[in-house]
Amino acid sequence: MNDIVLRPIGVIHSPHTTPEKTPIQPAFASGIAGTIEVEPAYEEGLADLEGFSHIWVLFAFDRAGEVKLKVKPFLDDTPRGVFATRAPRRPNPIGLSLLRLVRREGRVLHVEDVDILDATPLLDIKPYSGRFDVREGARCGWLDKVDEESARRLGRRGFEG
Amino acid sequence: MNDIVLRPIGVIHSPHTTPEKTPIQPAFASGIAGTIEVEPAYEEGLADLEGFSHIWVLFAFDRAGEVKLKVKPFLDDTPRGVFATRAPRRPNPIGLSLLRLVRREGRVLHVEDVDILDATPLLDIKPYSGRFDVREGARCGWLDKVDEESARRLGRRGFEG
Repeated sequence: MNDIVLRPIGVIHSPHTTPEKTPIQPAFASGIAGTIEVEPAYEEGLADLEGFSHIWVLFAFDRAGEVKLKVKPFLDDTPRGVFATRAPRRPNPIGLSLLRLVRREGRVLHVEDVDILDATPLLDIKPYSGRFDVREGARCGWLDKVDEESARRLGRRGFEG
Repeated sequence: MNDIVLRPIGVIHSPHTTPEKTPIQPAFASGIAGTIEVEPAYEEGLADLEGFSHIWVLFAFDRAGEVKLKVKPFLDDTPRGVFATRAPRRPNPIGLSLLRLVRREGRVLHVEDVDILDATPLLDIKPYSGRFDVREGARCGWLDKVDEESARRLGRRGFEG
């Protein structure tokens, strides 16, 4: 199969400059603000996005380091297959974060719950829809064994901004 | 910013061979079965995935045609910004589908709710987690105006497999 070549369509700005201190998920980054600056050439594609309170942001893990097929997840002590985790060191380093869209100003999106490193290349934005993206009663493997209190305490990784 | 080069990690097999007859979302493809065949080099990364009932599948829209920044969504008559839709003709043609994982046999995943064309290049797999991926009370812009009955009737696009 052929390689797929992607060109970043913008950049994500956040208060996170150190991977080790960046929250591991938007759910653990509640209220942390950032902006997404989309290239002028793509501004037209942002029309109607302001109707959505939440958006999927796809981005490049551009500082993830070497690929690992088994990783020790942040919330667990047992090595897991990388595809059973959200860890960044993936064969194709694409990140997926569900952010709160606070408002749009032209080609700049003001977002919250940001768990993404500053200056990260933006690849795509998709609207979040409960109708499309929610499954009731899903089984979540090893993640189901992580208790909520530990997840909340550890997942934010000390960010106090 | 530099281009991002991705190499497919496998291939998705489905009964869908015609874009116009492929359901527009997994939510409208209930029970439609397919398989995901991961390259042998990446099999180790699938460990622990079988604990999850649902997975995010990221793939290349390799037959999407030219990019359009304004698209008429399948469920709507008004042109919308492409980033406010899930349409395939995106600047970076990455698809995102939430599939039901029925079982894993080595490097083959048996999945359901497949809304993806046969022979589509696989880019990444991530576990679905209600804790990470659900937002209560989200506003969903133009999608909120599409009634459930029309969505269900149209969204499957006549697939009867």
